[in-house]
Parts: sequence; structure tokens; C-alpha cells
Amino acid sequence: MAKVAIVMGSTSDWPTMQQAALMLKEFGVEYDASVVSAHRTPNLLVEFAEQAEAQGFSCIIAGAGGAAHLPGMLAAHTHLPVFGCPVKSKALNGLDSLLSIVQMPKGVAVGTLAIGEAGAANAGLLAAQVVALQDPNVRQAIIAFRQQQTDKVMANSKLELE
Amino acid sequence: MAKVAIVMGSTSDWPTMQQAALMLKEFGVEYDASVVSAHRTPNLLVEFAEQAEAQGFSCIIAGAGGAAHLPGMLAAHTHLPVFGCPVKSKALNGLDSLLSIVQMPKGVAVGTLAIGEAGAANAGLLAAQVVALQDPNVRQAIIAFRQQQTDKVMANSKLELE
Amino acid sequence: MAKVAIVMGSTSDWPTMQQAALMLKEFGVEYDASVVSAHRTPNLLVEFAEQAEAQGFSCIIAGAGGAAHLPGMLAAHTHLPVFGCPVKSKALNGLDSLLSIVQMPKGVAVGTLAIGEAGAANAGLLAAQVVALQDPNVRQAIIAFRQQQTDKVMANSKLELE
Amino acid sequence: MAKVAIVMGSTSDWPTMQQAALMLKEFGVEYDASVVSAHRTPNLLVEFAEQAEAQGFSCIIAGAGGAAHLPGMLAAHTHLPVFGCPVKSKALNGLDSLLSIVQMPKGVAVGTLAIGEAGAANAGLLAAQVVALQDPNVRQAIIAFRQQQTDKVMANSKLELE
Amino acid sequence: MAKVAIVMGSTSDWPTMQQAALMLKEFGVEYDASVVSAHRTPNLLVEFAEQAEAQGFSCIIAGAGGAAHLPGMLAAHTHLPVFGCPVKSKALNGLDSLLSIVQMPKGVAVGTLAIGEAGAANAGLLAAQVVALQDPNVRQAIIAFRQQQTDKVMANSKLELE
Amino acid sequence: MAKVAIVMGSTSDWPTMQQAALMLKEFGVEYDASVVSAHRTPNLLVEFAEQAEAQGFSCIIAGAGGAAHLPGMLAAHTHLPVFGCPVKSKALNGLDSLLSIVQMPKGVAVGTLAIGEAGAANAGLLAAQVVALQDPNVRQAIIAFRQQQTDKVMANSKLELE
Amino acid sequence: MAKVAIVMGSTSDWPTMQQAALMLKEFGVEYDASVVSAHRTPNLLVEFAEQAEAQGFSCIIAGAGGAAHLPGMLAAHTHLPVFGCPVKSKALNGLDSLLSIVQMPKGVAVGTLAIGEAGAANAGLLAAQVVALQDPNVRQAIIAFRQQQTDKVMANSKLELE
Amino acid sequence: MAKVAIVMGSTSDWPTMQQAALMLKEFGVEYDASVVSAHRTPNLLVEFAEQAEAQGFSCIIAGAGGAAHLPGMLAAHTHLPVFGCPVKSKALNGLDSLLSIVQMPKGVAVGTLAIGEAGAANAGLLAAQVVALQDPNVRQAIIAFRQQQTDKVMANSKLELE
Repeated sequence: MAKVAIVMGSTSDWPTMQQAALMLKEFGVEYDASVVSAHRTPNLLVEFAEQAEAQGFSCIIAGAGGAAHLPGMLAAHTHLPVFGCPVKSKALNGLDSLLSIVQMPKGVAVGTLAIGEAGAANAGLLAAQVVALQDPNVRQAIIAFRQQQTDKVMANSKLELE
Repeated sequence: MAKVAIVMGSTSDWPTMQQAALMLKEFGVEYDASVVSAHRTPNLLVEFAEQAEAQGFSCIIAGAGGAAHLPGMLAAHTHLPVFGCPVKSKALNGLDSLLSIVQMPKGVAVGTLAIGEAGAANAGLLAAQVVALQDPNVRQAIIAFRQQQTDKVMANSKLELE
Repeated sequence: MAKVAIVMGSTSDWPTMQQAALMLKEFGVEYDASVVSAHRTPNLLVEFAEQAEAQGFSCIIAGAGGAAHLPGMLAAHTHLPVFGCPVKSKALNGLDSLLSIVQMPKGVAVGTLAIGEAGAANAGLLAAQVVALQDPNVRQAIIAFRQQQTDKVMANSKLELE
Repeated sequence: MAKVAIVMGSTSDWPTMQQAALMLKEFGVEYDASVVSAHRTPNLLVEFAEQAEAQGFSCIIAGAGGAAHLPGMLAAHTHLPVFGCPVKSKALNGLDSLLSIVQMPKGVAVGTLAIGEAGAANAGLLAAQVVALQDPNVRQAIIAFRQQQTDKVMANSKLELE
Repeated sequence: MAKVAIVMGSTSDWPTMQQAALMLKEFGVEYDASVVSAHRTPNLLVEFAEQAEAQGFSCIIAGAGGAAHLPGMLAAHTHLPVFGCPVKSKALNGLDSLLSIVQMPKGVAVGTLAIGEAGAANAGLLAAQVVALQDPNVRQAIIAFRQQQTDKVMANSKLELE
Repeated sequence: MAKVAIVMGSTSDWPTMQQAALMLKEFGVEYDASVVSAHRTPNLLVEFAEQAEAQGFSCIIAGAGGAAHLPGMLAAHTHLPVFGCPVKSKALNGLDSLLSIVQMPKGVAVGTLAIGEAGAANAGLLAAQVVALQDPNVRQAIIAFRQQQTDKVMANSKLELE
Repeated sequence: MAKVAIVMGSTSDWPTMQQAALMLKEFGVEYDASVVSAHRTPNLLVEFAEQAEAQGFSCIIAGAGGAAHLPGMLAAHTHLPVFGCPVKSKALNGLDSLLSIVQMPKGVAVGTLAIGEAGAANAGLLAAQVVALQDPNVRQAIIAFRQQQTDKVMANSKLELE
Repeated sequence: MAKVAIVMGSTSDWPTMQQAALMLKEFGVEYDASVVSAHRTPNLLVEFAEQAEAQGFSCIIAGAGGAAHLPGMLAAHTHLPVFGCPVKSKALNGLDSLLSIVQMPKGVAVGTLAIGEAGAANAGLLAAQVVALQDPNVRQAIIAFRQQQTDKVMANSKLELE
């Protein structure tokens, strides 16, 4: 069965990146979450990316902040789809993270999501959408989730001044 | 066989978005390219997105500029993976396009690529990487392409002052 | 009598968008406030916009944050005037919301107000200014409000160091 | 019959702002176009804004670049709806114009359109949409225009690599 | 004796703008501080600026936030030197205030200081520097102040890890 | 008679900065224009600033681009008023120049003008406005200039579609 | 033995800049930390930079915020390597500091680090890397530090949802 | 004798990066220039960085554009000083390159220079300044170069209106 890797540059990214894990769990997609730092463990990065397919991963979700090189460097070492999550940074609120991840040159791609928790959750959703192309259960779970979120908005749509 | 949809907000986006088509052609992935304007043909957008799966598409590549609503609105109407391409805009060079595409709220995901031609090409590559999860020929073609681009850099790496 | 629709992408936008409601109430303009999410309830969006004129609305005030597609997509489905309110977003403070709303392509217009509460209040004021073109009572109420706010500034204009 | 004022800070803004005039002409809405500089003719600005209603204008379209004070100052002197057009500036491409126009404080509103020609055209469209609330011919002309632009996109939507 | 006017768009700007007052007081320069809102009291603005010279003011310090039109509009109605202070705004931290004040078109000038309190203090200093051209006491007070601030830095320049 | 110094970081800034010279010439204010580079001639900078008052200058206009340290460093070495002109830079269009000049810390002030030629012209105007406080001829010349520019706008204010 | 100078514009920069001191201490590199304000003690700046080599310093680390002129002006007065640290500023979060430091013109160089504490720490590291070219003990200490930080990431890389 | 490595992500960066080579040549510092792409030749990057010290390099100058990962990834694989050059990018003019290079996390440092040619030249200068710490000839050449550029400015400092 398909499995998704969630990696991030630092344990401090986990509060953001666990949103991806929660989303995959929601859809019954198996995942592994770990820290792989582009700058502090560059050899682990190479090893991780090169073995990702053999380890049974279908795609990789990678989150990082600031000069966020992790998603792009993983993509440079694998042909699996890589989805990048810009983590909010201290000084520039993640604008640096976003540009460092999304502005990849032609030939190595990273599908980038929004800055912060919403983007991490959506990386989980997008990875599940990819898995769903081959797995009817995941497809069904996504359709159900989307319907639920529609229903939830529609059930409480009227607003009143107090 | 898997097929990829390439849609864009205007025919003026085609010089950028044809990079996605060329990339898919490189990998032998079938595609359809067409104009679907979120603002000028909103009903076509709904119809297109809702029928995309039945039409045999595996994923959708969507390019738009300025207040670029096309990728996100397609994603709102389908559970197929959607990849968004920010087209360079006149006044703000695509920064508006990028933020309009990438900053999606939790629950509806768009995997966003770089502004302009590099991003469009990479959307084709990323879509092919998704297709490759089910298609060994495409997988092989991507591996070969990546090797070729590595070889090409390495063959001409020495630089001299004239 | 003229009525104004206030819609927003999420209940979390209501603390901002109620400023529009309060302003309309100040001028005696009837309004309806509800949640219509471009991404989570896209079909409701189409239905809402297409029926807005028949429901007796003169114009639509729409607030959203991040990749804020709601105002532009409503404008794509109606010929009523649409006024857009960029809600402050978590990472980029509403700059993403502003650009997603204001940078509309030629042919579908959104009159955009300031980021956050001031903009929401002014959307209510601007909608009332439109209603006032046909309603002398609203016109009078706006003129009185403007005079009051002038008087209020002038009554307390001297400042002293403590 | 309703009439729309188009004003701008300099004759050099006319190539941009004439898009508003062309749009109004398209819908059969009468307009007057003139230069009123907030900084070089501030007394004319006051006079213009204070007499706009008596002159028979329904709304005012104002375009300016850089520290673009014209739309906001007109709005300060009239209760008619004011729509602001950020003209592209030399150094900052109109980002300064946009922020100077859109970020109005609570109590004086400017409905702001996109930077440059698209925004000027849409200011004409939005003003016509306001006029259409009272004028069935303009309403009909807008509906027809919108249908035509939809038809035009749909007639040429297929794209091929050459 | 020379006198400086300090005006601001709102009483909420006073905590920032009082820094200008404190600086002028430091140099023994007389000043008047008051609220003049470009948008809410536009006629007062005209009157204030046109009478400033007759009232005995040498220069005007004007602070405002967001779409900060006050300094530029005062400058449009007087030939006295105007110094502008961008007050920090809620969403964009004063970047909008800065661009709205500094990007004046050729022909009407505003000497702009930094965003926030440092800028307000420096507006007081700069106005005093202008006054000092005619007033030897103020000149002496500035020279003394500058020497003191140099001495203060030099007295405590060594730093140690605790 | 009062004299104004115009300095700039490089001869390549002269096409921009000569706008200041032309403006001063217009008002009959004497000036000296020269290159003083903060980074390439730092000792000249110190000498220039320290002797500026003794040389008979009333104020200093300083233009620079990129990491534009010239205006602030001149201000650090003199108590004369310094007006800063951000010259348009290659990569960032003068946004770097603007922030480097305007964001001075409390205690040393630079009155900053707009990016590029308009700002340089206005630096000349503002310096003349300061000179005019002591020189009735310059005061009269400014009033006449301002009237002329008002007249010029008003003489050609009507616009027609061709 | 090689020594590194750490200077900063204000004592309020010390909480940030002490990260550089801590890093140098980690590697056994001697340093001196002091306040040298470009704007408030400009003569001290000249003296400090001109005597730095004679004082036995190998390189200079300089931190400043806002219109951060200290690193560039030190570099203008010495041929020692200068490393610049943009300190986070109040309004613009250090973007102004970064651009003021990094955008130096050709001919005077500042090697710039990240905004805030991470950048200050890395300035200490980079200075140590320069010292290490001549000092085998420092070289060994850096290699050990780098290995430790790698080991630390690898020891705790697995992440679980709670 | 000390040698400097100049690497860049693409041959298209050479017109920018050759400024570094010219500067090193000016000072008589030996260098090697080559293409090493972080994304297209990631294994070459690892090999290059890990062998740089053994190859006799004292420091590494690395230039890249967009999501510019090369300088930071080289720094992750070596303890030699790395200087990064943000190459001007197509859509965002090098702001993305700058942030991707400079915003490194604590523990791996890149000394970053200005965007474009000035920054590349200064990277050569800064590397030479590091080499000069051990090489009196290079030290002398830098002092001479700096004096020449000072003399050049001073020889042509007077400016006249034509």
C-alpha cells in the first residue's frame, strides 16, 4: 500500500507539519514523519531521497523555514513527487520560506503549498489526492471529507450581529 | 492511459503554459490544452472541473496571472490533484499571481510551481511524476531526462574569462 | 427597498466583516450576512451570485483572506456591483488577500477596500453610497454621519504633552 | 440621465484612464474626463468634489500614481461613490499607487481597482454596474457585454503546440 | 520667534507624534500640536495649511498612517517646508504609510522620516535644524544634544557576556 | 546668501540628481554639485560634512542608490538639515535605496524624498523652501512656480478620446 | 593569535549580537564586543575601522538595524573582511536592515548574514571559519561542532503524533 | 598558494559571476570557475564541497538565482567560508535569490553579497580580503585598489549642468 514521507528541517517545524500527518491519517494513508535537515544532515538528505522509492514511499512532503532548501534538494535526488511546505519564519513570516521553496528552476519541481499550518494540512490532502489515483478507498475518503466540509459551512452560514 | 489537462485563463498565457505541454510530450504523457477563464467563463470552469475525472484526466495543470483564481477554483470542484502556475503579470511581475494561487485555505489544495516558464515546465514534470507512479514507461522517461540534464551540465562545467 | 448582501469565506471573518453590517445598520440599509466559501461551497457561491439580483440585492460585499477568491468569483457570476474586503491573514497580514482581490483582469470588476476592519466598515459605507443614489433617506444619513465624524475630530483637536 | 466623472492626476495618466472612458462608452454611459491634480490643483479638487453631485454625476472614477492622493481626497469632499485606479508608477510599478489608494481609514471609502489598464477598464465597468441599478438599458448592455466576452473565450479555447 | 506646527490624522497618532513635540521642547522650539484629518476634516486641512505662514509657523510636521494623505495635501496648500511621519499601520506595519507619504510627484515636496517613533522624533529634530538656521540658541542646543548622545554611547560601549 | 550643497555617491547619479540643481536654479538659489562617495571616499565625506556650515551651505541634498549610506552619514557629521534622494537601483528599483535612507534611528535625521527624478527635483524644491524662510526673493519665486504649475494643469484639463 | 571584533550600533542590539560572541567562544576564538554607532559616534567608527588591523583583529562582525550603515561604513574604512548582521527592526522586521547592509556597491564588500539571532550566530561561525584557515585548533573545533549538530539532529529524528 | 573556487548554478550565471573572477584576477588570486547545479548535479555538489579543502581552495564563491540553494548546500558540506551571490532572477529581480541565500538557519553560514554584478565583484573582493590575511601581496594589492578607486572618484567630483 502507498505510503507518504513527511520530512522537515527541524523538530520545531513539527507543530506545523503535524497538520500534514493528521490529514493523511484522516484519509487512512500511511506515513512516516522524521527530521532531515538540509544544512545540518546533508548526507542523510541524499540517502533519504535516493532510497525513498525503494522504501515504498509514493511521494514526499517536506517542510522548512527561512532559506528552505530541503524540499528542492530532496526533489533533486528523487523522481518521486515532492510537495513543499513553507514554515513561518521569525523575521519575514515565511515569505523567505515560500520563495526559497517555490522558485525552483526548470527541471526539478516542487509543488508548493501555503505558508504555515493551512499549507501543511493541504500537503497531506494533496499527497492523498495523488495516492487516491491508485487507491479507491482513499479516493472515497477524500470525497467524503470534502462533502463534510461543505456541509459544515452550509449548516452554519447565517450570521447575526449580537 | 493517464491524461493530463492543461488549462489557462487566457490565450495570452499559452506562450508560458506551452512549456508544460512540451514537458509532458517529452515524457510521452497525453494532454489536452485549453482556455478556461475563472472570471469570463465561470460556468465552463465548474463543468470542466466536475467532469475532469470522467474525461480520464489524472491531474490538472492550471495557469493564470494577477488575481489568479483558476487553479484554486478548479481544485474546489474536483478531487483530482491540481498544480498551479503563476503567470508573470504586468505590474507586479507575478507576485500577485503567486500569492493568489499558493495561499489556499486548509481543505482545498493547489501544488504551486514557480512564476513563469520555469514553473510551467515544472508543472508538466510534476504531473508526469504523478503519472509515473502508475506508468513504468513515464517513470523511465523521467529518470532518463533527469540523467540527461545532469550529463549536460557536467559536460560543460568549466568556465574561462574570454 | 434596496438590500445589501454581506458574504464571507468563513465564520472566522465575521469579527472583521461585522463592521460592514454595523455601518449599513447606521444608515438604515437592510442587509443579509452569511458564509459562502469559494473553496468549500463552490456551488453555493454560483447559486448565490446568480440569484442575488432576484433576491433583491443591490450590491454584494464579500470578505475573504489569503488566496481570497470569493469576491472575484461572485463578480464573475453576477452583474451587480461587488465590493471586496481583504481580511488580514496569518502569515502575510492580508497582503495576499489584497492582491488576490484587487488584481482582477479586465472584464470582471471588484471595488476593493482596505485590509481589515477599516476596509470592512468602508465597504458598508460604499455600498450605502451606492444605495443612496436612489434613496434620499440613506443619502441624508450618510451626509449626517460624515458631518458627525468631522465634528468629532474638530471637537478634540488640541493635543498637549502630559 | 446618469453621468460618470473620470478624473486623473496628470495628462500622462490618460493612456491608462481612457480605458475607463472606452468601457463607459461601450455601455452608453455619459462621462466627462478631466485632469484634477490633488497636489498641483488642490483647490480645484475641493471645488470639483463638492460640486460633483450638483453637476449630475452619479459616481467618480479617479486615477493617480505614486503617492496617489486624488481618489481619497475626492472621497473626503463628496458622498458620491468614488472608484480609484492605481496608475503604474516608474520605480515601484504601482504598488505605491495601490497602497496609497486602497488603505483608506474607516469613514471615507474608495473602491479600488487593479493597477494599470485592466483596473481603469474595470472602474468604467463598475461605475456602469452602479448606473445599471437605475438604468435598464445600461443593465442590458452589461449583460450583453459579459455574454460576449464569455462567448469569445469559448470560441477559441483549444490550444495546440505549433 | 519661529514656531513649528505638529499635526496628525487622529488622536491615536499622538503616542507616536509626541516624540516630535518632546524633541522640539528639548531644543526650546515652540510648537502647536493638533489633529487635522485629511479625510474627515478636509476643509480644516485647507484652512490650516493656507494660514500656517500667517500663524507664524516656520514648518509643519505631519504624521499619518495607512493611505496617509495628510502630509502631501498640506504641502499642496502651503509653501512652508513639510516633514512627513509615517505612523505604523495595523496590517502593513507602516509600509503603506511610508509609500503614501514619500512617493510625492515632482512639484510638491514632503521630507519624509522613518516609520514610527524614531521618525517622529527625527521630524522634531529636522524641524529644529531648519529653525536653527536663523536661531543661534536652537543651533547651540542641537550641537549640545548631538554631543550628549555621542558621549552617552561612548560611556557605555564595552559589552560582556553575562 | 544661502547656498545648497548637492552631493551624490557616483557620477552615474547625476542624471537623476541634476533635477535638484535645475529646481534650485529655477528659484535663484546658489548650489554646488559634487560626487562624495560614502564607501569609496569616506574621509572626504567626513571632511565635507564637517565643513559644510563653514562653507556657507544652508542645507545638503544627498542622493545615492542601493545600500545608500551617504545621506545618513552626512547627517551624522553635521547639524545642517540633510535631504535624501533614493536613486533607482538596478535590481530592486530603488526600494533598497529608499529604506536605507529613510529608516534612520532616533537622533540623526534625513528628510527623504521620492525614488528617482521626481524626488531629486523635490529635494531642490524643499531646500529652496527652507532657504525661503530667510530669503523673500526665493519665497516669491516658489509661490510663482507653484502658481504656474497650477495654471498649467488647469489650462489643459479637458480630455477627449481620439 | 587571531581576534575578532564584534561591534553594533546600540546596546539594544546586544541580545541579538551576543550570539556571535557565544559562537566564537565555542570555537576558542578571542573577541572584543563594543558599541560603535555609525550615526551617533561617526568619528569613533572611523577610528575603530582604521585601527582594527593594528589592534590585531582578523575580521569585523557588525550588527545594526533599520538604516543599518555600520557594516558598510566600517568596510569603507578597512580592508579587513567585514561580516554584517541585520538586526530585526520594529516596523519592517529587519527587511530594511537587510537591504541597507547587503546591497553594497561594487568596490566595498560586506558578507551579510540572516536577519536576527541566527544570522548573528552564523557571523560568529563564519568569522571562525576565516580564522580556521590559519589556526588548526579552530578548524578542528568547527569540524567537531558541525559533527555534533549533525549527530544531535540524527539522534532525535523520528516524530509521532501525540 | 591560496586559491578560490567560483561556482554557479548555470552557465547563464557566468556573465554575472565573471565579475568575481575579474576581481580576483585584479588582486593576483588564483581561482577556478565552474558550473555546479544544486538541482541538476546534486551529487557533484556534494563531491565538490567535500573535496574543496583538499583541492587547495581557501574559500568558495557561489552564485545562483531563484530558489538559490547552491551556496547554502555547499556550506552544509564544507567548513570552508562560503560567500553567496544572488543572481538577478526573471520574475522577482533577485529578491527570491537573495532571501534563499541569506536567510540560513543557525549553524551553517553563508556570507551574502548584493544582487547581481556588484555583488559578484564584491564576492571576489571579500574572498581576496580573506586570502590577504595570510598573503601580504594580496593585502597590498587590495590597499592599492581601494586607493585607486578613491582617487578616481576624487579626480572627477565636480558636476555641472550642461
